[in-house]
Formats: sequence, C-alpha cells, structure tokens
Amino acid sequence: MLKVFGGRVVKKFCGRRLYTVVGHDKLPAIGVNVQEGVNVDKRTLASAERKQRTFTDRSQLKYARRLVVKLGSAVITREDGIGLALGRLASIVEQVAECHHEGRECIMVTSGAVAFGRQKLTQELLMSLSMRETLSPSDHTREDAGSILDPRAAAAVGQSELMSMYDAMFSQYNVKIAQVLVTKPDFYNEETRKNLFCTLSELISLNIVPIVNTNDAVSPPMYIHDDSVVPGTGKKGIGIKDNDSLSALLAAEIQSDLLIMMSDVDGIYNKPPWEDGARMMHTYSSKEQVQFGHKSKVGTGGMDSKVNAATWAMARGVSVVICNGMQEKAIKTIISGRKVGTFFTDCPSNSSNSVDVMAENARTGSRVLQQLSPVDRASAIHTLAELLVDKQDKILEANNKDLEEATKGGVAKPLLDRLSLSSGKLKTLSIGLKQIADSSYDNVGRVLRKTKLAENLVLRQVTVPIGVLLVIFESRPDSLPQVAALAMASANGLLLKGGKEAAYSNKALMELVKESLASVGAEEAISLVSTREEISDLLSMEKHIDLIIPRGSSELVRNIQKQSQHIPVLGHAEGICHVYLDKDADPVKALKIVRDAKCDYPAACNAMETLLIHEEHILGSLFTDICNMLKKEGVKIHAGPKLSSQLTFGPPPAKTMRHEYGALECCIEVVKDMDDAIDHIHKFGSSHTDVIVTENESTAKKFLTSVDSACVFHNVSSRFADGFRFGLGAEVGISTARIHARGPVGVEGLLTTKWILEGTDHTAAEFNECKRTWLHEKLPIN
Amino acid sequence: MLKVFGGRVVKKFCGRRLYTVVGHDKLPAIGVNVQEGVNVDKRTLASAERKQRTFTDRSQLKYARRLVVKLGSAVITREDGIGLALGRLASIVEQVAECHHEGRECIMVTSGAVAFGRQKLTQELLMSLSMRETLSPSDHTREDAGSILDPRAAAAVGQSELMSMYDAMFSQYNVKIAQVLVTKPDFYNEETRKNLFCTLSELISLNIVPIVNTNDAVSPPMYIHDDSVVPGTGKKGIGIKDNDSLSALLAAEIQSDLLIMMSDVDGIYNKPPWEDGARMMHTYSSKEQVQFGHKSKVGTGGMDSKVNAATWAMARGVSVVICNGMQEKAIKTIISGRKVGTFFTDCPSNSSNSVDVMAENARTGSRVLQQLSPVDRASAIHTLAELLVDKQDKILEANNKDLEEATKGGVAKPLLDRLSLSSGKLKTLSIGLKQIADSSYDNVGRVLRKTKLAENLVLRQVTVPIGVLLVIFESRPDSLPQVAALAMASANGLLLKGGKEAAYSNKALMELVKESLASVGAEEAISLVSTREEISDLLSMEKHIDLIIPRGSSELVRNIQKQSQHIPVLGHAEGICHVYLDKDADPVKALKIVRDAKCDYPAACNAMETLLIHEEHILGSLFTDICNMLKKEGVKIHAGPKLSSQLTFGPPPAKTMRHEYGALECCIEVVKDMDDAIDHIHKFGSSHTDVIVTENESTAKKFLTSVDSACVFHNVSSRFADGFRFGLGAEVGISTARIHARGPVGVEGLLTTKWILEGTDHTAAEFNECKRTWLHEKLPIN
Repeated sequence: MLKVFGGRVVKKFCGRRLYTVVGHDKLPAIGVNVQEGVNVDKRTLASAERKQRTFTDRSQLKYARRLVVKLGSAVITREDGIGLALGRLASIVEQVAECHHEGRECIMVTSGAVAFGRQKLTQELLMSLSMRETLSPSDHTREDAGSILDPRAAAAVGQSELMSMYDAMFSQYNVKIAQVLVTKPDFYNEETRKNLFCTLSELISLNIVPIVNTNDAVSPPMYIHDDSVVPGTGKKGIGIKDNDSLSALLAAEIQSDLLIMMSDVDGIYNKPPWEDGARMMHTYSSKEQVQFGHKSKVGTGGMDSKVNAATWAMARGVSVVICNGMQEKAIKTIISGRKVGTFFTDCPSNSSNSVDVMAENARTGSRVLQQLSPVDRASAIHTLAELLVDKQDKILEANNKDLEEATKGGVAKPLLDRLSLSSGKLKTLSIGLKQIADSSYDNVGRVLRKTKLAENLVLRQVTVPIGVLLVIFESRPDSLPQVAALAMASANGLLLKGGKEAAYSNKALMELVKESLASVGAEEAISLVSTREEISDLLSMEKHIDLIIPRGSSELVRNIQKQSQHIPVLGHAEGICHVYLDKDADPVKALKIVRDAKCDYPAACNAMETLLIHEEHILGSLFTDICNMLKKEGVKIHAGPKLSSQLTFGPPPAKTMRHEYGALECCIEVVKDMDDAIDHIHKFGSSHTDVIVTENESTAKKFLTSVDSACVFHNVSSRFADGFRFGLGAEVGISTARIHARGPVGVEGLLTTKWILEGTDHTAAEFNECKRTWLHEKLPIN
Repeated sequence: MLKVFGGRVVKKFCGRRLYTVVGHDKLPAIGVNVQEGVNVDKRTLASAERKQRTFTDRSQLKYARRLVVKLGSAVITREDGIGLALGRLASIVEQVAECHHEGRECIMVTSGAVAFGRQKLTQELLMSLSMRETLSPSDHTREDAGSILDPRAAAAVGQSELMSMYDAMFSQYNVKIAQVLVTKPDFYNEETRKNLFCTLSELISLNIVPIVNTNDAVSPPMYIHDDSVVPGTGKKGIGIKDNDSLSALLAAEIQSDLLIMMSDVDGIYNKPPWEDGARMMHTYSSKEQVQFGHKSKVGTGGMDSKVNAATWAMARGVSVVICNGMQEKAIKTIISGRKVGTFFTDCPSNSSNSVDVMAENARTGSRVLQQLSPVDRASAIHTLAELLVDKQDKILEANNKDLEEATKGGVAKPLLDRLSLSSGKLKTLSIGLKQIADSSYDNVGRVLRKTKLAENLVLRQVTVPIGVLLVIFESRPDSLPQVAALAMASANGLLLKGGKEAAYSNKALMELVKESLASVGAEEAISLVSTREEISDLLSMEKHIDLIIPRGSSELVRNIQKQSQHIPVLGHAEGICHVYLDKDADPVKALKIVRDAKCDYPAACNAMETLLIHEEHILGSLFTDICNMLKKEGVKIHAGPKLSSQLTFGPPPAKTMRHEYGALECCIEVVKDMDDAIDHIHKFGSSHTDVIVTENESTAKKFLTSVDSACVFHNVSSRFADGFRFGLGAEVGISTARIHARGPVGVEGLLTTKWILEGTDHTAAEFNECKRTWLHEKLPIN
C-alpha cells in the first residue's frame, strides 16, 4: 500500500524504502539538500538531517517531523485517581492521528496499563463480595478497593485492554498502531537494544504509530536509577527509571525532533512553587539553573525525573516540552508555537529577551521613570524627537525594506500608504513628540485632592502611572515613537507589539527609543516584543501587564477584547453613531451637520451610521433635501423597517440597524419623537457618539442628559469626538467601556492615583479612644 | 447479578424485579411515599412517580432520575465535517457513565453511523485509486470523496463500528450497553411499539444503557414529517422526522425527567440570531413565543425541529435542555444547575424574574434615576432610611428566622454576630443612609472639565453612573440597604446577590428598598437575585453588568476575580501591608505605630503583616523593645530568612514572606537600607498599604514617591487606609487594581463620565478648511 503524507512519499519498492522530496513540502527537511524529485535512501537522509541543535524557538516547533508523545498516568486516569479519563485519552489520540496525517512521524510512550487493569480487577473483586457487602449503600466500584491489588497483576490485565482501546480509537482515523513493550535489560543487551530500535524504525517507515510502554507485568513500575554507560554505545545512558527517562532515551535514539511529556502540572518552575516569587517557566535553556521539587499527584516520576529526562534529551538535540495533559488540545497548541508548558532548548539567547523578562524590566523601568524629575522625562522625549529627524536616513532605509517586501507580497495601496514613512512624516512626528514633551510636566505626581484628616495628618491623592502597558498596533510604524513618547510622558513601562509588515521600520525606530531612554537611565522601560510572540500568550500575562491598548482595525480590537480575560482593554470595537433630527431642527443646520457627520471621513469611527428623523419631517421638504444631498454625495441609503413601511418607493431596507458601514453608506429610520429616538439609540447604538439637531433648548437638554453614550452632542457634527479636537493633546484611543477612561482618551487614561498620608505618629486607636478628633477638612490643592 | 446504584437496589428475584428504597437516597423519588425497606413493584412505583409537570427550575435538574441524552451528528463529527470527534464522544460517554453510577437511568439517542461509515468507505475508496492519483501530493482521506458515498451504505458500515466504539468506551466504566435500532413504522404498529418500550424498560431495569438510533441503513435519514395520531394511544404523536423527534417521543413514552439534546449551537434565541437585539434564551417557558431559524451546520434537523421536539416533550412532562455539545462537560454542568443551553419548562413564573430581565430592568431603572433631580434621589434614600426604623419589627422577625436556621445548622458565633440585626444596628444604619443621601447632591452631573473648543462650541465632561453593578455579599444583611443607598446616590442600577444564610432578612430589606424606589418611580433599578442563581452564571453576563463588587472574605474576592473574565471586579484579594522602620526612625513613634498597625484590629486588610527593620537597629534596643512589645500583645513572630541568619536564637522562620496572617501574628525581616526595603515591598507586597517610620524628611519623600502601592504612609499607622478615615464617606471597597479606582473607594468609584458638546452648527470640515479656528480654552467649572 502506498501512503502519501505531507508531500513526501515513502515508496515501498522491492523491500527498499526510498524518500522522494516532491516539493510543496509542509515540513521541510532542515539542513539537507535534496533536489526535487530525486530519490534518496532513507539512511542517507537520516544522517544528513541529523540536527546538532534543538529548535531555538517555539515558532519552529511546527517543523517537528519526528515526535515522541509521552503520557503520564495522571493524564490517563481521572482526577479522582480511579476511573479512566477516556475523553482526554481520545482527544490525544485525535491529535496524534492528525499529526500523523500531516506527515509527522509519531511515537507514543504511554502509562495506564495499571489503571486500566485496576478497573477490571475491581469488577472481579465485586463479584466475589458477600451479599451483605453488596447490599450496603456505598458504591464499591468507586472505592479504593483497587489500591490493594498488585500493580503487576493489574498491569498484565490492563495492558491488553489499553492496547485494544488505542487500537479502536486510532483505527477511526485510519492509523495503524503497534505495541512495543520494553524492560530495562532490553537497553543493556546490545542485541535487544539494536533490535528494539530497528523495529521502531521499521514501524515508522511502515507508517505505523508505535505505542511503547514498560512491561510492568514483569518489572515493578519504579526502576532503580542508573547512570551507567549504555553497552555498545560508549555513551553515558540515562537510567531507565520510569517512562520519563524511557521516552527521553527513545527520542534521542531515534533522532526525534520533539518530545512532548504530558503530566498533571503546567510545566516547571524557577523555584519550587511554594516559595515566594516562584513562577512558571515557559522556556528553559541549557544555561539556566532551576530548583524543582514539584511532585505530580499520580504517577511514579515527580518533576525531578521529568526535568532530568528532558535535559538529558535536550543535550542530545531533542527539543522537549513538559506540559499539562489536562489542557485541551495541548499537542496541537504546542506545535502551533503557543506558550504551553515549558520548552527545553539549548539555545541560550531566548530566555534573556523573553516577554516575561521584558515585562518585568518594563515595570522596573517605569519605576525609574517615575523617580525622574518631569524635566528629565521631557528631555528624553525631546531626545527621541530629535533622533527621528537626525537619523531619518537609517529609518527610511529600514522602511524601504518593509515597503519592498510588502510590494513583493502584492499588498494593497492603502496599506502601503499606512506603512510608508517619509522625511515629511518624520518631521511632523517629531513636532508632535515635542508637544507631548512640553505638556508632560504636570502628568505624574499631580495632586488631585488634599485633605487634612486631623491635626498634623494630611492626605494627598496624586497621579501615578498605571504600570506596564501593552500596545498592539498594525502597519503604521509612526505609532511606535508616538506611543513610546506617551509612555515616557506618563512614566509607564511599555511593551510594543507591531505587525510583521513593519518589522524593519519598527526595529529601527525602537533603537532610537532605547537611545533616548538610555539618556535618562531608563533603557528597559520600553521594549519591542518579537513579531513571533503570539498575541494570545501576551493577553494571558495579567501579572505583568496592567492595560492593553490595541491600535488598529475594529476587527483587531474586537478580537483582543474577546481574548483578554483578566487584563482591561482600552478601546472601542464599534462606532455606531446616530444623528437625530428633532421636530424643531433647523433645516439648514441639519443638512450641514448630517453631511459632515457622514461624508467628512466615512471610515472614521465617529462618522454617522444611522440618521433618525422625527416623523413630522417625513412628509416635509427636509427629508427630501437630506436624501438628495446624501445621494449627491454618493451615499448609499438603507431604510429602517418603520421608514420602509411608510414609503411606497423608498430606499432598500437595511439588513440590520446595528451596523457600522464605515463607508459612504448609511441607514435612515423614522422615529415618533425624541423618546423614541433615545430608545432606538440605546437599543442599537454602541455608546460611542450621538447627536441631536434641534432649536428647542429643553428638548436638547433632555437628550443630553438621557442618552447614555460616551459623547452626546447638540447641533454639532459627530466628527468632533476626537482627542485632539477635545483639546486632550495626543489621543491614546476612544473608549466605549464604562470603567476607567470613557470617550476620547488623552494621556490621563494612562494614569491612576495613589494616596499619600503624612503624619507625626498617628494611630487609629487614638481616634477610637477619642484622644484625637477627625477634621476631614478639604485643603486647596496648591 | 446484583447492582447497587444511588441507594436504590434492583433485586433480580425469580424473574420479578423489585425496588427497595434503602434510605440515603441521593435521588429522592418525588411524589411517592415508600417506607424504608419496603419492597415495591416497579410498575406501581413508576405510575405513582409519574410527574405531571416538568422541573420548574434548573436547580432541580440534579434530581433527574431518568435521562435521555441525544447526540446530533454535529457533536460526533469534527468541525471540518469529516473526521470523528472521538475526544468529545469519549467525554460524553464518561459523563453518561458517571450519571449511570450516580443511580440515574440513562438512554442515549445517537447519530453518527453515517459519519463512521463514511470514514471507513473512504479508506476503501482510496484502495481502489490509480497509482497516479495516489502519488499526487494531496491527502485523499481528508477530501470530500466521502460525500459522494450513499449515506445508507455508509450507515450500514458505520453502525456496527459506532456500537463497537460505544461498547469499548462504556465497558471501561463497567457499563453494559444495548443497541436499539428503530424505524418510523415501528411506532405505528401497535405491537412493535409496545415491544420497543417493553424492551427499553427491561434494559433499564437490567441496569443497561440502551443506545438508540434510527435504522439509517433501511430508511433515508430524513423522514417525512407527520403529526397523525399514534395508533393504539389515541394521543397525537410527533412525527418521527429525525433523531430530535425520536428522542422526544422516547423521553415522553418512558416517562423520562430530562432530555438533553446536544448539537452545535448554544441554545435557542428569542429571535433569529442575525436580527438586531437577538439574544440567547436560557429558559424557555411554555408561555413564550420565539422565532427561530437557526440552522446547525451538520445534521438533518435545524433548530426548528429541535424546538418542536422539545416543546412537544415539555407538554408531556419532560424537561428539556438544548445545548452545545462542544462545551466541555455539558451534561454534568447542566445537571449541576448551571445556565448552559436553553432549559424548557412549563412553569411560566421563571422567565419574568430571570436575571437577564432583572439586569435589563436595572439598566432602564438606572436611566430613570439619572433623569431624576438630585433632590428626588436623595429623598428616595431618606425614605429607605425611615423605613428601616419604621418597619424594624418586620425586619427583625425575618432576621430571627435566619438566626434560628443558622443556630439549628450549628453556625459559629462570629458568623451569627454578623448575621444578626438589632434595633440599634438598624438605627445606626438609618443614620448612615441619611448621610449618604445628604452628600449625594453633587454625585451625578458634576462638571469635571469645561473647555471652549471654538467660538460657540463648549465641551463639558460630566459625571454619570457606571450603569449596572453586581454586588455579591456574604452574611451581613446590613450591607443590603447600605449598598442600595450607594447605588441610588450614584443613579446606578444594581443587582444584589446575598448569601443563603440571610435569605429572609435580605428579602424583607429588599421590600423596603423597592418601596423607597417606587416613591420616585424607579422600582426596577435594584433587584435581589435569587440565592439559587449560580455566581459563575452571573459573572458571564458582561452585556448586562458593568462592574462587580464582592463584599466578603478575601476567599470570595479571589474566587470572583479569577472567574470573572470580561467584567471588571472592584476589590482586593490580599492586604500584605508593610511597616518599615528606617535608620532614622524615632523609637517611641516606631513602637506606637507598629503596635497600632498590628494589634488595633489584626483581621483587617490594612493591618501590618511584615515589619521591615533597618539593620542598624538589630543590635540596638529598638529591635528588642519592639519584640517585647509584640510578645506582650500576644503577637506570634516569624523571622524572615535574613533575620534568621543573623540571630542565634531567633523567632521561628517564616514559611513565606507573602502571607496575610490576619491574626496576632507577623513576620519580621531585616533590610540593608531603604532601597532594600522598597525592593522587598515590591517583591512580596500586595500594593495595598505600606508605611515608613523615619525622622529623615528626604528618606520619607523618596519612600513616598518610590513605593508603588495604593496607599503609602509616613509616620502613620497602616490602619488609616479606609474610606471613612480618608473622608470619602461610605466606603465601596478598597481596590488594589490599577485601573479605575485605587485604594479606598467612595461613591466616586461608582461613577464614570460622559462628554457633552454644544454648538450651533459646527462641522469638522470647517476646521480643516480653516473657516473656523480652534481655541481650546479652559473655562472655569462654575
């Protein structure tokens, strides 16, 4: 039978197996030069391919071609320690089968025979219970009767059961499996050892997934640790202590790229987790020293044994990930490059600029910035502003590289425009930065409230930075210095995550930011996160990041709002703005405001999407004039259901009243009166910006009070909802959230407060005992 | 064989099956009187138990004793529509087996034969491909070759495969299964119909799980819909159109309590989901009218067919839940009472006071409150304050009931104290409420910023309520009127969720709140959520709730912070406060402040947990004096690692430096200097409150600037971190978050802002075209 997988074809030809590289290979052979279509003997290829180093980075894990998956018994048994976690097991089989079909060569090392066997033996035990015992109300199948059973007997019973389960499951995906049982002496006897690896190679080339287990029926599950030299190899072996070391040995011997060890813990810690400051490691490099003592609940091997096995395998060129098997789709997630579990690599560079470290540095950097005088902070921004002009050649050169690649990739014109920098753009940017610097003196440490609580006891509420911000921005590289300047002006730490398309420009600009920060000794306060980092990983760093600001399409914002579970997101996903033309609207003003609200810049979030018209206007000239004006401007009109029902030949009906057209397109609906308009706005709006046009002051007042949106306007175009127009200086974003900042947000949105209390020796008890009295006297701020 | 399940025993005795109620029955028989130990014939029991009504409430679902689980093919097949979702299937088997072992009688109605068969046939197809086809780089097993296969043939091939899979999986849990294949005529022929249900009853009483499927090999998967009378019953039948109607019919005929229909949609909508304002229904009562048209991706039956089947079954006393089978542990979650999918009940009362409706009313109510004058809002609070005193008899009567039940339950003294109300407590509460009322005039609509953007264009930033708050509080019923008053004072809508232990008191107090709200026409602004509502369900209502305030133990706060994913939580989980005694500390002040910080009220979050001492004091008298004082006060001392290493006979070492003792217990550590103290605080603190004791002003200044906590004090006890002491009036909570409010939070923490812009006819275009000019002139607020 011939089997196609992942673009490579294994031809079974007269007993010799050959590899053909057919192109479109999803999993390119690293380090081997094979011409397309040329047949290569497997052995040649294998030795040519032999990597000397592990993958340097998680993003490379998708290239893993030979994969060992080790399942601890904690993964196979349920949380109660007795039953089998069939759902989890089946899901792992599903993922291994998928990897297999993608062209990866998979080997499973599995525990679980004892658990399976126990289940069966318990049942037998039940059959031999007395009548009285059986009639008692407790459920014997759930009790720990099983624990008294001999694990060797249980293993003997369970192994066949386990394999038949694997067989049944894998056969659903057309994957053939084979059972390989090993004991320790198999590795020490040269012949059995050789046989074993030959068998495994043979099975793999036959496109079969070997399922390996220690032969628990003949040997106790826990072996004696032994680091002696493996006979016939001259190499120092890893003692086959348990399935952890077995999987490491196998992975190294068969030259696997990746070993995934699944247990019931999330990964390893840089200290035992009960110690202060312990944290999960996402990447463990060979240079690092860790202490560990984390024991998993079930299973023979603790975390020590896993880490030993992993480092042993890593030293032999196998990348290892230790992860929690309880996590859904762990294998696929790991291969996709997400930060699940701990990744073992011998590439040392990775850990120093890991995001965790960057974020911690950003927090420290923020504290350094905070302690600077406002003049020093402003001077750093001025330095950056000057560097933008002085080093423009370097910036534009980098920008050109991005533009070239984008052009090659066939990127659309508007995106190219956003991506491109010019001498003029940099000049304007530089001027903007100087403005941010000049208005920054009062940002941090401003007193907002001052109260004399009692004699000699004064409380001040002062502004302080929020902490560490994560700004995610698309295409526009000019965002980078702007956001960096805002962070400096507010003494915040900052992580920046830019798009791939602007990678060169961002890198060049970041160098200037670092240079300007270094001038005040706060180099680490701002960092550029690698484009390889997964956004979803960043969004789960709630211990390190205090606020996320996505700057880009509403698609991006919506996505991030949805994914971020514990870090607040500043922004708005939708701008469904309404203009309501009241009964008492001035027709000239109405025409003027509607035109501006819709046509000035239709793609903006503060452009009008729905026009609400008082029913008295429908039969008058205002409605006709508005429609004619909109038509003339090229605006496509949709009618709301009420308007549709009133007109014989009206515009086509709107599919929904809750839609952001973001183009020369809008919806018109008729309303009975102002209250009806307000109801409509509350029902279909996005609480962004809503406008009333009326000459009736009391109607206007009621509208302004009642409409529950971030911005509510009277006789003004909705387009004024903007930080610059509001006089807030540089705009951080527009927020439709109700907590923290709302509406257009300036630097103030990057600040929070702290309370400073100064006394002489005040204690709470003195006030309880009436030895001192409360004054609570409001003091002037200056 | 005898089988024990859930306390009931089925005895197989000479061919007759008898039920014995043995007591400790986890699933009590509703509506049947059976004495303990008395044998009852099954048929008698079955008819006596026959319920006339469905469960009225999700919390009753845990009593479901006979359960039909229907799996749509969308659940069994993978998202790509081809492969099998083995992981999901196994997890469902796991849950059904668990239900079975809990003593529930389970029947499965399953699709999937066609999908299983297709997989197998595709493989056969592959075998008959030509050499050329096989060598092409695409993977045939993943292509839609299967779709050309005859579904009847596929079903024939797949059914046995499907059953052997179920058999293999269920046997892991010691559950025996049986296959029952049905076709439409089986239900019309009286004899086959009777046989069918006899067989099912027999299987169930034999403790076997029947797996039912339509016999797709002989009949096409889609039957003609038919509502004719079922022969032999005189009842109008439901046409056996598909597995949806089949499961409904089975559930009704075998008198099942609960039918769970799993597909790939979350439940039903009150409108088709593409329409504006559509929302998922969590409860569908027989009185409701819904429109639906939601089609699931795979499978024959759309949402119409499911809802028809569900309402048909509901009318026959079967509770139904339609849910998304992709959700993890759906069956167990539904049985535990969580709001997953749509629950069908014929009890109409449920929907009107569902939490969704309450929350929507709270939002409307908040808007009503907002439009009231401050005087009216204050008057409502005054009314409440008076009612608390006037109606104290009624309140205390209700409170007594709670106290009685708590005493019966053997509740500890401190909890009883918190639970109990008294005439005096109500009086104090009433005075507090009046203070809230009197200071409320300036809360809403206060102008924070006023800018003249241009000629005749004035911008104001004014305070508005946040929207809808959810306050979760434990035991103390006095929290209820206090929180209600704060919400009224800030015009917020409010959902209150109290503990079960104070149910009577809370209900009585809520009536008074409603009465006072009714006096200003805002009755719906505040509601008490039923104690039955699951907190986790409330935390997922991000569309309805804007802010969550947990008031209770740090355990409660931590839990809610962890669970709430998209709604901000105001509060603090930890208060690890430090006092640092500087080199230049005044010894007398130091002693005084440390004593107050630790001993005034050790359980408070603002009590000191760690004392940091400058190393120069260790050998002097201050250290000895402090230790003696603490010992005298009964404080248990733990030593930090550095202190431990410096003393020969010191206090026992602290297990961790990051611990909130909350009792007369603290940790002492030595630090090199102030910078070392700051590092320690940043590393181990919780950013709550930290204190320096020093006479050196410049050291103090640096500490106050550098320590990044919500409250930083100089020469003052940490106990001052409190809303009342800060002069903020009523305290909403203390926040250690960095977004929104920070530190002690008063009513201001319940407010946000909106921007009001008033002009004459201003458009953005005019400014771009320089016809108007920006002024951005700051105006005085009054």
